[in-house]
Amino acid sequence: MKSSLLGQSLIGFSRGVENADSFRAVNPSTRQQLDPLFFSASQKELDIAAGLAEEAFTFYGSLSGADRAVFLRAIAVEIESISSELIARVEEETALPHPRLQGELARTCTQLRLFASLVEEGSWVSARIDRADPNRKPLAKPGIRSLLRPLGPVAVFGASNFPLAFSVAGGDTASALAAGNPVIVKANPAHPGTSELVANAVSRAVQLCQLPEGTFSLLFDSKFSVGAALVQHPAIRAVGFTGSVKGGRALFDLVCARPSPIPFYGEMGSCNPVFILPGAMRTRGLQLARQLFESFTLGGGQFCTKPGIVFLPPRDTSAEFSYALNAAVMQSPPFVLLTPRIGAEFNDAILDRQHSDLLHVTAGTSHLLSASGVIGQPTLFETSAESFQANPDLENEIFGPTSLLVHYDQKKELVDAALALDGHLTVTVHAEEEDLKEFPTLLSILEKKAGRLIFNGFPTGVEVGHAMVHGGPYPASTDSRSSSVGSMAILRFARPVAYQDFPDATLPRELQDANPLGIWRLVDGRLSKDPV
Amino acid sequence: MKSSLLGQSLIGFSRGVENADSFRAVNPSTRQQLDPLFFSASQKELDIAAGLAEEAFTFYGSLSGADRAVFLRAIAVEIESISSELIARVEEETALPHPRLQGELARTCTQLRLFASLVEEGSWVSARIDRADPNRKPLAKPGIRSLLRPLGPVAVFGASNFPLAFSVAGGDTASALAAGNPVIVKANPAHPGTSELVANAVSRAVQLCQLPEGTFSLLFDSKFSVGAALVQHPAIRAVGFTGSVKGGRALFDLVCARPSPIPFYGEMGSCNPVFILPGAMRTRGLQLARQLFESFTLGGGQFCTKPGIVFLPPRDTSAEFSYALNAAVMQSPPFVLLTPRIGAEFNDAILDRQHSDLLHVTAGTSHLLSASGVIGQPTLFETSAESFQANPDLENEIFGPTSLLVHYDQKKELVDAALALDGHLTVTVHAEEEDLKEFPTLLSILEKKAGRLIFNGFPTGVEVGHAMVHGGPYPASTDSRSSSVGSMAILRFARPVAYQDFPDATLPRELQDANPLGIWRLVDGRLSKDPV
Repeated sequence: MKSSLLGQSLIGFSRGVENADSFRAVNPSTRQQLDPLFFSASQKELDIAAGLAEEAFTFYGSLSGADRAVFLRAIAVEIESISSELIARVEEETALPHPRLQGELARTCTQLRLFASLVEEGSWVSARIDRADPNRKPLAKPGIRSLLRPLGPVAVFGASNFPLAFSVAGGDTASALAAGNPVIVKANPAHPGTSELVANAVSRAVQLCQLPEGTFSLLFDSKFSVGAALVQHPAIRAVGFTGSVKGGRALFDLVCARPSPIPFYGEMGSCNPVFILPGAMRTRGLQLARQLFESFTLGGGQFCTKPGIVFLPPRDTSAEFSYALNAAVMQSPPFVLLTPRIGAEFNDAILDRQHSDLLHVTAGTSHLLSASGVIGQPTLFETSAESFQANPDLENEIFGPTSLLVHYDQKKELVDAALALDGHLTVTVHAEEEDLKEFPTLLSILEKKAGRLIFNGFPTGVEVGHAMVHGGPYPASTDSRSSSVGSMAILRFARPVAYQDFPDATLPRELQDANPLGIWRLVDGRLSKDPV
Repeated sequence: MKSSLLGQSLIGFSRGVENADSFRAVNPSTRQQLDPLFFSASQKELDIAAGLAEEAFTFYGSLSGADRAVFLRAIAVEIESISSELIARVEEETALPHPRLQGELARTCTQLRLFASLVEEGSWVSARIDRADPNRKPLAKPGIRSLLRPLGPVAVFGASNFPLAFSVAGGDTASALAAGNPVIVKANPAHPGTSELVANAVSRAVQLCQLPEGTFSLLFDSKFSVGAALVQHPAIRAVGFTGSVKGGRALFDLVCARPSPIPFYGEMGSCNPVFILPGAMRTRGLQLARQLFESFTLGGGQFCTKPGIVFLPPRDTSAEFSYALNAAVMQSPPFVLLTPRIGAEFNDAILDRQHSDLLHVTAGTSHLLSASGVIGQPTLFETSAESFQANPDLENEIFGPTSLLVHYDQKKELVDAALALDGHLTVTVHAEEEDLKEFPTLLSILEKKAGRLIFNGFPTGVEVGHAMVHGGPYPASTDSRSSSVGSMAILRFARPVAYQDFPDATLPRELQDANPLGIWRLVDGRLSKDPV
């Protein structure tokens, strides 16, 4: 297997050169370095990739939805054809369990096929036709028709915690390609071998579909300079990023300072607050304890939707819940985390909170899995609503298997805490009917705080569908007007273009009188599939 | 009439206080200062307005589309009820001709009613329903439903060149209010009296509809500090701006540097390039000369869609066109420009270009209308495609009655010029069928450069409809994914919110099973008005 990895960037159909700026992946179970060496892309290689992408955009951006669908499905097939080799490498690089990775690979291909179906059907372009009226007084009314067109080359930053579904051929890449944009991926250095295998699969699909080589490139980087140069390159017209607030904000700032700013979609930090209301606690406290434990430790607590803050009724009404949850934490084996850096940051953050007088701590006590692995003990903190309100730092995300329980005493404390919340990806409410009557304003407050609200469920597990919203007010994302999961994600990489009084034959097919693609169009303000 | 103006900001239903930071409007026909004195808002007044807006959002943001429609129509009625007084004041403050202002007032009210109809009908929220499947393996599928929800208080900056249609109750305000957001307008200091009259009309509508006072405020400012503080205020969640690149970029940079960045929609500079191809020139050169003159001098050349660059076939094939156009320029009376500053900047820019060796100049020679007025002579510059390409400054917008003719000799020069273009609001092509065959790649190049392409027409005149796109790649706008004109503009001030597994009765009505509002919804990926 190792022989198939070269460790060089993919610059269209060419390979980057070997150089002194190299790095290796690390197996987090053993901290062993893995072969081969990977080489950071040079500025020259980045320039070539960007130039190829710009060149490819002319052809690829004009391709029909049907042709782009063929390409997206080809990528899925190519990824599936290397699934054993791929999953073996991801396991080595991430220590994520086999079933999870099988699920994630399936999800990655499902995403590609969802976008294939979407662009094949074609109505996503939001075609609009306002018909001309030559007899209008005082001035004749021109005919205006518009649709969504791709933005141009998109830079994608792979995430560490979803090495397949949010990385090289993940949601950002799939949606950007679907909209008609070439993609340049900056590989996440935590899983470079995985990245190269997936990039090779994408590249084979580009070749098989006879697309221009600039349709896709992959750049390696040991540090941050390639990513920083990439988002500032004039050929790049939008950026998709999944990662930390710190990294995302740094790139966002670079993008804003460009001579020509571009859209930046950073999916960053979130604590995904959970509100457990008194009735729900009474009715199913023990069940909630079990589900909460599973949710905040799922994938080692390294999901962007991990419930990191849980608001609970007064202590005396949640004793059983607390007992069961604490027991689950103490009995839990530790988790292997994704990278040495994530492990170090997790353990530093935990240590920091353990020293706080404000917090009660319950931590896992089991023996370590291995002395050398990257390990995180599940750890639970508890505090009062009053302390939580007084310490805004407690709303910062800690990546890993930890959560913070916040006990409120008065109803008003809970409402105030909800009002004071920052932006999050999700907010969850556990409630019985009586609870919603008790807290009549809560839902309308929480709706302003997140992209997705969950009722009597848990936030981990993000469905790939049409209605999903994965995003939210800052700092959950840099652009709350969008979703990075589901078919809505395609809208991030397109802009409307209007055509005034063009002859029918020169219009994009989506806008021609006969509606040859049979798509939904807004004709004089009414949705219709009819010709005009 | 003058007695009805107080010169104080509207802070909800209260008035700002008088202070030392005051200014007056100027009549550009006479340079006479007009009564009354206007007083800049203080930081404290801004804070109060922002606090009221945030407070109002809870109520106003949850209002039904039908109720918001009543409010938008009430604003239109209130504006119409003061039309004589209003138009008289706009004329004094802008020197724009009476028929134009009547048209603009009608357009302003049409816009308000367009958005009223849009939110009354309701489908604009893009409701999406992915139904649950409890039997799915390995995990039950949750039910996810999403729709667009308002962002929160929006700051609007009135434009100098459309004192009604892009100012206090213009497109930005109408679309932000329609989406459910309170609005705080920073009045354009060029027409403060107009602004106060319109703001009073909006305020009366707020009161008649019994909406919270924070739904609307108007802030005066003699300089820039109120605007700068406004876009940085934490209660403000989005900004709509129409104005210069310099002003827009300065505000954009402030918004990007906020702890929590927000959407900024700046509609800024554009030269709206026009391409006249050889066949069109041969067929109707004289007609094009007349139409071009009318278009670039319309409203004194102070339209954001003014054709500021015109690419022409070789000189020998466009002699009649040039003769006719030059004659029109030389015979034209000068124009009164909007403000002393606009006049000074126009005349400086013209002087600068008149001194360039690269440019041939044709200027109006008529006597000045008035020695004291703010005057701009129509002025035409000519250069070669080669010089144009070598001097990127020539692509900068000059606000006022001037345009630049660029003669190309070779076909390749035209294509290269098209490829090198910056972003613009519009691009226009005048062509016969033979031309499109001669220049097969031109349209696909130009489509990447603008928000609207016009065929055999002129860019001035922006229809208010559903298909209109008024925006474009930077620097035409800071966000090419949006339109500031037409019903699409409402999408700027909303974000998607998803609800997972919520009981039907707790969902927004747009997402309830029975579809009580009868709107279009995407149910499991298919558009439908049916209940689920």
